[in-house]
Parts: sequence; structure tokens; C-alpha cells
Amino acid sequence: MENSLGDGGHRSGADAAGGPTIGELGEDAVLARLLPRLAPGGFAELGAGDDAAVVRAADGRFVVTSDLMVHGPDFRLAWSSPYELGWKAAVTNLTDVAAMGARPTALVVGLAAPPSTPVAVLEGIADGMRAALERCAPGAGVVGGDLSASPALTIAVTAFGDLEGRAPVLRSGARPGDVVAHAGELGESARGLRLLFAEGVDEQGEPDPRLAEGLRARHPRAVSAQLRPEPPVDAGPAAAIAGATSMLDVSDGLARDAARIARASGAAIDFESAALGAELALVLGGAEDHGLLATFPAGTVPPAPFRPIGRVGEAAGVVSVDGEAVDPAGWDPYADWDGGRG
Amino acid sequence: MENSLGDGGHRSGADAAGGPTIGELGEDAVLARLLPRLAPGGFAELGAGDDAAVVRAADGRFVVTSDLMVHGPDFRLAWSSPYELGWKAAVTNLTDVAAMGARPTALVVGLAAPPSTPVAVLEGIADGMRAALERCAPGAGVVGGDLSASPALTIAVTAFGDLEGRAPVLRSGARPGDVVAHAGELGESARGLRLLFAEGVDEQGEPDPRLAEGLRARHPRAVSAQLRPEPPVDAGPAAAIAGATSMLDVSDGLARDAARIARASGAAIDFESAALGAELALVLGGAEDHGLLATFPAGTVPPAPFRPIGRVGEAAGVVSVDGEAVDPAGWDPYADWDGGRG
Repeated sequence: MENSLGDGGHRSGADAAGGPTIGELGEDAVLARLLPRLAPGGFAELGAGDDAAVVRAADGRFVVTSDLMVHGPDFRLAWSSPYELGWKAAVTNLTDVAAMGARPTALVVGLAAPPSTPVAVLEGIADGMRAALERCAPGAGVVGGDLSASPALTIAVTAFGDLEGRAPVLRSGARPGDVVAHAGELGESARGLRLLFAEGVDEQGEPDPRLAEGLRARHPRAVSAQLRPEPPVDAGPAAAIAGATSMLDVSDGLARDAARIARASGAAIDFESAALGAELALVLGGAEDHGLLATFPAGTVPPAPFRPIGRVGEAAGVVSVDGEAVDPAGWDPYADWDGGRG
Repeated sequence: MENSLGDGGHRSGADAAGGPTIGELGEDAVLARLLPRLAPGGFAELGAGDDAAVVRAADGRFVVTSDLMVHGPDFRLAWSSPYELGWKAAVTNLTDVAAMGARPTALVVGLAAPPSTPVAVLEGIADGMRAALERCAPGAGVVGGDLSASPALTIAVTAFGDLEGRAPVLRSGARPGDVVAHAGELGESARGLRLLFAEGVDEQGEPDPRLAEGLRARHPRAVSAQLRPEPPVDAGPAAAIAGATSMLDVSDGLARDAARIARASGAAIDFESAALGAELALVLGGAEDHGLLATFPAGTVPPAPFRPIGRVGEAAGVVSVDGEAVDPAGWDPYADWDGGRG
């Protein structure tokens, strides 16, 4: 994979200046520079370039999920490189596909940016998407997309998956006695975000690329978990094959997401604190881990990298730790939103 | 269909104030108000509410296309009602599906808006989408989506279609001697946009809702073609069944879009001026008609509402009218973009 940023993708978006802007090149020329960076993948019967693409759906249906990421509420160019933005936009959708028990097959991508944006920024986003697909969903590719202009850099990703003949794994299937298991990191992404908000901003509270660089050096794992997560996408189909009764992508913190399974299933989720580690608040309330939370019938050994972290109980909708109920804290993109930042 | 705007959807977005804002309600409560307005349709095996939806793809593949519409470059709330925005966002994607010869099955929708946006605006968009689906693609529905915050109202639609076992109709299949035919309106949408830019703006050049209302009354057909197009979506599958050799959605003007077929097919497209009407410049250069341009083997009578408007010739990539080459004029979303307007 080519990466025109030449630094492994770690240079922040705020630094990625130089070269022609998308306004100077125009839509067709920008597309001509982006499309060669985005292979359509092995499931595309027809890739980008016509009115629409055609994607294979071998079992007669497809899984589909969609996310909009907007500069300000969803990311900050002063902290994330374009490569990281593309990476994260891809994997957050891939984990939603995986959370149904499906294998990702393809993405479509909409990008909108101010006309003053260097084309190199969009190229970096494309490179990050491609790298994420190669790492987390080999064989899947980008089959189409759209460009527009916006005052805020906007990345819209829609992802598709193949259930390979299996039933989708819903949030509603957890049953009392089931094993609760998790695959992926817990709390690291939230730790990274907390560090960035605490030490990655200048005296006016503005995100600062140089301060973020320092944090990367001192806390590589946490910052990387936030800016370039590597969720266990393969674990989704593996859980389905192992008989998972419910599953979801942990994007809003373990407590809030467990409550979704608990409500949908009419059951309780009880975590063992010993399995959650020392930083319980980060693990329960922290956002954007993008691991997979699943339940398995009692007696099942959850497939690696899942590890047991609790048990399904009777009380409908309740989330608890060692039997003590917790209040699902959450994260809302409109809360405390400041469009002038980022 | 409910329409909370209570005026048939003609009230401009700039007027649609009042009621709670999306920032006041938060993401979950906004979604709870939008989802009941958006039926998942008959192709959804699983609609919104889990990590992803599941859509049937009976012939083992699906057609997919995506568009981003952003306030400013792509629409103006002073002119369009939320209902019209939702309608247009849906149909522009449905025609891309139809242009492959496919029947639309489902949409996913991403919406981003300033937190100060009244929820009624998003409800209006949802109502317009649902109405467009009922009118242009009965049986298709909205199976999922996402909300975020942005300084500019942003509507991201991804649409799916079913080829029903047929090969997709590409841009590359036109052959010398083929009949060139068109289904839908030609030039009306461009006439509407020209009227809005000329007479729908105040003395400072700002879009004005009251002036736009006057234009609606005096030029209902042109303004409606621009703000709430009714393209012949059914004509796409009909053309495929009739043996269309190439097809596309006319979104950038007949000349520019014909040139796409001409280049992809290595052939010429020659229009008969008598079939294009008096306002040739609007028809050739005008954008967003969203009709379907197709070619059919010589001797085929194109299925209604297609009507013959020309012939495929030998000269690769050339577009002409009565044998005289024309320069494909086009439309670029980054050209003359002014994010402060709209």
C-alpha cells in the first residue's frame, strides 16, 4: 500500500498541507487520484465508475451498516492523521458488520471537505481505509463513493457483510445462565481520549498537534487505541460459528452497550470486576473501544480472542458488577458539541 | 404518510422552526422520533436497531450507490423544504440504482446537522424520503442510518437494488447503430435552478424563501423538477428487460452524461435537435434532470416512457447534435463554492 504521507500515517491532519487542493482539481480529478488507492476487493462484481456498483451476496442477503464521522464532534484533525481517520472510519463500520456474525465484503465511502482541503488529505484517508481493510477484512474493498463540499470534513462509510448462511447474531438472544464474553481492548481507547483532552490541548483548550505527538510517544497504546483501533473483526464470525446468542460492537462503553443487550434480551448482564481490570470507570463508561461483547450458552468455551467477563442473569435490563447494579453512562455526539473546535 | 409540516411539504427549511432541537433531545431520542417514520420495507430481513441491518438479495448480489448532499453546494434550506430534501436525496439515489437496470430495495441514511436544528427538520427529511420511496420504489424502505453533528446539514444516502437475475446495464455497451432514448424530463430542473438563482435571491444574492415561494406559484413545473424531481425509476428495469445496451442517470446534463457513455463505449452519441426541444442549452448543459439515458439495439422500440432522441455513431467519445459536435459542459460541486451561502 502506498502512503503519500511518508511517515507511516502518524502525521496529524493539521500538518498535511501542501500540494493542490480539491477545489483546484475539481471532482473528477480528485476521484481519479483516489480510486486507484481503493481496490474494489474480491466481492465486487463491478466496482466504482458506473452509476452503481454490484457486490456479490452469496447467501441471498447482505448485512449493512453506516456511520457518519464529522470533524469536530467525531474527530479532530489536530490529533488524527488523515490515514488514521480513514482507518478508523473503516474499522468502526467493519466491527458493526462483525457484530452481526458476518464477514465484511465491501465499503462505500462519501467524503465532503472544504474546497481548500489538500488532495493529500483525502489520499491519506483513502490509504488508511485500504490499510484497515487489508488488516481487518482481507478480501473486502471499496466499491464506490461520492465527493461533495462541506465546511466540515465529513466521512460517510457504509459497510456490507456476508452471513455465510448463518442467522444474524442479534442483541436480543442472551439467556439467563449464558456466559458473557468480550474480544478486544477495554478502556484503552477511552484512556487515550482522556489523555488527548487533558494534555493534547493548548492553554485555550484547542487541540494541538505537537502536544498530541508527545502523547503518542509517552502513551502509544492508549493513543493508538483511540486514533487507530485494531478491533478483532474476525472474532465476529467466529462467535457466530461458536453459537453466540447475542453480540454487539462496544462503541459507547461496556455499561451502556451491555444495557442494550440486557434490554433487548429481557435479561441481566453481570460482570465480574476481576475480569475487567483496575480501571473500572474507563472500562464501563469509556467509548469507542470497538471490541465485541457477546453471550454464549452456558458451558461454551468462547472462541479466542473472546474471554469470559461475566454471566447473564434474570433481571430484565439490569447491568451489574459483582451483583451491584451500575448506571449505564453514555456518550452523545450532540452533548457539549462545539463546532468551532477541532 | 404523516407529514408534520402540515402543508404538503412545500414550506422551506428556513421556515421550519419551532419545537425541540436535536441538541436538546440527544441522539437516542431523535432516532426514536425518526425511525417510526421510515418503514424498513419488504426487502428487509432485519431493519434498524441492531449493529447492522440485513437485506435480501435474491439473485446473490446487490447493486449499491451512494450520494452525499451538503447544505450550500448541494441544496439551500431557504429554497427547499426538509420534505423536498428528503425526497430528492432518495430519488437521486434510486435513479442511480435504476440506471443499472435494477429495482431499488432499500436505503440507509446518514444525517448530520447543527445541534440547533429543530427535530422537525429531520422529521421532514424522513417524511420526504418515505414519500419518495412510496412513489418511486414501492416495497423499498429505509433499513438503517446514523446521526451526527455538523455545521452544515448533511444527508448521506446509500441505495440498494436487485438485478433480478439480469446483467447490469453499464455505460460501456453502446454500439454504432443503436437507438439513443431518454425517459424523464429534460431541462426542466435546470430551468428551475436558473429561475431560483435569478429570482429566488435577495439584493445581496442570498437565497430568499419568500421569493422562492413566488417562483413556485409562477413556475410550478420547473421549480418542482429542481426541488422534488419525479424520475421514472421503473423505466430502469424496463429498459434492461427490453435489452438496453447502455444506460445512465442524467445528473450532469445530457451532453456531459452522453459523453460518459460515448467514452466508455468507444462510440459516438448523436442527438436529433428536433427531439430535444427549443431550449437546447438547458437540455444539454442543465444538471439534475435525473432522467435515464439509454441505448437500445437498432430496431428496438424503446419501452415507454423512453422516447428516441438520437443514434449511436462510430467516432469514439464524440457527442453531437444533428452531426455537429458539442463540448460537454458540466457541473462541479467545488466550482464557485461559497460555504457561507444557502
